[in-house]
Amino acid sequence: MKRAGGERGPREERGVLSARIVAAARASFAEHGWAGTTMRGVAREAGVDPALVTYYFSDKRGLLAASLEFPESFTRGVAAAQAAPLKRRGRVFMDTMLGLWEDPETGEILHSTFVTAAHEPLAMERLRETFSASILAAVSESLEGEERYLRASLAASQIIGVAMTRYVWRIGALAELSTEEVSHYVAPSVQRYLSGKL
Amino acid sequence: MKRAGGERGPREERGVLSARIVAAARASFAEHGWAGTTMRGVAREAGVDPALVTYYFSDKRGLLAASLEFPESFTRGVAAAQAAPLKRRGRVFMDTMLGLWEDPETGEILHSTFVTAAHEPLAMERLRETFSASILAAVSESLEGEERYLRASLAASQIIGVAMTRYVWRIGALAELSTEEVSHYVAPSVQRYLSGKL
Repeated sequence: MKRAGGERGPREERGVLSARIVAAARASFAEHGWAGTTMRGVAREAGVDPALVTYYFSDKRGLLAASLEFPESFTRGVAAAQAAPLKRRGRVFMDTMLGLWEDPETGEILHSTFVTAAHEPLAMERLRETFSASILAAVSESLEGEERYLRASLAASQIIGVAMTRYVWRIGALAELSTEEVSHYVAPSVQRYLSGKL
Repeated sequence: MKRAGGERGPREERGVLSARIVAAARASFAEHGWAGTTMRGVAREAGVDPALVTYYFSDKRGLLAASLEFPESFTRGVAAAQAAPLKRRGRVFMDTMLGLWEDPETGEILHSTFVTAAHEPLAMERLRETFSASILAAVSESLEGEERYLRASLAASQIIGVAMTRYVWRIGALAELSTEEVSHYVAPSVQRYLSGKL
């Protein structure tokens, strides 16, 4: 799988190496936290020269920011769900989100983001920015009326609750149902938040 | 505020000291994780002899278990909410949960539990047990029909989502509304899970 490269270095090589560095950093931040993660340790895990980590990400803060980027497929998924007709957008949103969490690659990224954010204030701050800018703003943009930011926030609270109980905590019935069933039960609540009476 | 004592030692003194130890342990697990927490360090923070920590909690596992106990007021709140008439139980549940999170003492305990569970597998396991045994089982017991465990799990997903976005991540509109408003918007979803068509 190719990733888009940056401005510097051969596109493909940069893509591959930086993705490897970010994956190593993500695992380290999730397991050892901010204090327990070093540029050198990440370079070792990724099998690259430490200088390359600095070259691509400047410092640990840059590395953390990159680790907490929502996967591109996530942003694409949100965009696609927004394009669905309003009256069935709740279901499309749930299906999209569940699909992203079920996907091993994206699911792993989302999982580490949730875990890292829970115990690293810097990560939390970063997640808050990303979340507000790309998810809440995007979702509310596709809605109408004064309450659209509220609607997007309410929908997010339900989707995040499902992600927490099903994928992070793995508790209760939601951890055992099929995605189809989860979506069936939860989508009406998401739909109410997006378009129902509040 | 007195706490109930255990079998050993003068009731009141034991209550006060063990509460102090648990508070110190909770803060340490939340900040430094399982690996970074020591019986000795907790004793120092609590201002007690390390031997007392061992006497009360046996080992670090016992200390973690005690740190992750849901506060008594939480259990009482769940019990009280369950006693509310089914048709308005969704609202009572939301009000109760929001009240517990808003309360500085209980809110602090819930917050550390969420944070610690996110990055400590042992804590997660413990939270999963407590949650399943005392929350999901209790809530589903007060409902009727085959779907009651599912209903309790769905209600939990929504309530946990609100707690995450409002109190842990502090993102979106839910972090800024009054508890009254949050409850107004979210309670109908909780109510649907408890008693509506699924």
